[in-house]
Amino acid sequence: MDKEISPAVIKRMPRYYRYLEDLVAAKVERISSNELSEQMHVTASQIRQDLSNFGGFGQQGYGYNVKNLHDEIGRILGLDEMHNVIIIGAGNMGTAIANYVRFEDLSFKVTGIFDVASDKIGRTICGREVQSMDELPAFTEENHVDIAALTLPRDNAVAVADELISLGIKAIWNFAHVDLNVPEDVVVQNVHLSDSLMQLSFKIS
Amino acid sequence: MDKEISPAVIKRMPRYYRYLEDLVAAKVERISSNELSEQMHVTASQIRQDLSNFGGFGQQGYGYNVKNLHDEIGRILGLDEMHNVIIIGAGNMGTAIANYVRFEDLSFKVTGIFDVASDKIGRTICGREVQSMDELPAFTEENHVDIAALTLPRDNAVAVADELISLGIKAIWNFAHVDLNVPEDVVVQNVHLSDSLMQLSFKIS
Repeated sequence: MDKEISPAVIKRMPRYYRYLEDLVAAKVERISSNELSEQMHVTASQIRQDLSNFGGFGQQGYGYNVKNLHDEIGRILGLDEMHNVIIIGAGNMGTAIANYVRFEDLSFKVTGIFDVASDKIGRTICGREVQSMDELPAFTEENHVDIAALTLPRDNAVAVADELISLGIKAIWNFAHVDLNVPEDVVVQNVHLSDSLMQLSFKIS
Repeated sequence: MDKEISPAVIKRMPRYYRYLEDLVAAKVERISSNELSEQMHVTASQIRQDLSNFGGFGQQGYGYNVKNLHDEIGRILGLDEMHNVIIIGAGNMGTAIANYVRFEDLSFKVTGIFDVASDKIGRTICGREVQSMDELPAFTEENHVDIAALTLPRDNAVAVADELISLGIKAIWNFAHVDLNVPEDVVVQNVHLSDSLMQLSFKIS
């Protein structure tokens, strides 16, 4: 399992995980690449090739052991460990993510919500009080933070990202409408909604 | 400009558009691929190759005419036309998108917000009253809808997507945690936040 996995496969892994999760929930024990192919609308050969990265879970005439494959992909995706997530920005997007992270996946736990706006500080979101950004340095000293979800408008986002990095946060889930320039040891995963909408617009033009 | 543009270039186009928009706003008239390369953190040769798809805007020793290139990419992305967007689901994500679409890009206009939940119907979001899903057929008959943003929980999403399609909607911006199977003439652009979060988790594992 120490073999290098290509970026294209890594991008497809969460989707496999999603389908395998449903199969586990439906108590399906094994599935052939052909059956999975029909469900996922990708070719069976693509599936066989992708899943061959994760060791010997497929057997000719038997198919994949659903639970094993699910757990192995989950392990590779790091979902076997709990991640502490803080949310920066208590607006609609921050609130949506707080609700989302909490319910969608048990490997992620919202441990703090922060904002700069005085009308948002002190409000409760998902049972958690919104704290002032001024409290963030003390918070990160006392609590390990794995991921910061950044949902501020682009004007504030760059400066706040720099602050997060200076506080030792190594992973930013960036919803701000701007690219962040970060040191090499910091990971950024962008959710650029405008880019997504423009792609959709292109497809219908 | 009728040359086929590769999917990889299409995916990069919104990002070029974003940078060019900032350059236009900053009243920059021209930029070399080297300067753009520094700002965007991609190689100059990648930029030259990508932008060569959009005709003769680059000249040796002159660089790109920022405004022309911005407008041309915008035109290809379909941003020169107004798109009517309805939002299905008036929860946090729906509200976030309503705010987002309205302010971020003038080529998209939220013309209706719909929900099934009686406690959400009648509320006002961004100056627009949330309507019942029961009103959607009459609405789509009277108003042209280009895009439906689907922000319902996954349990409802598939049935509602089928309804949207039966009402003649051809483009779905899907925020639900499920893949939609749609006819060939319908376009789906997914924003799977869980997939994005899993990719981030992978990168820090």
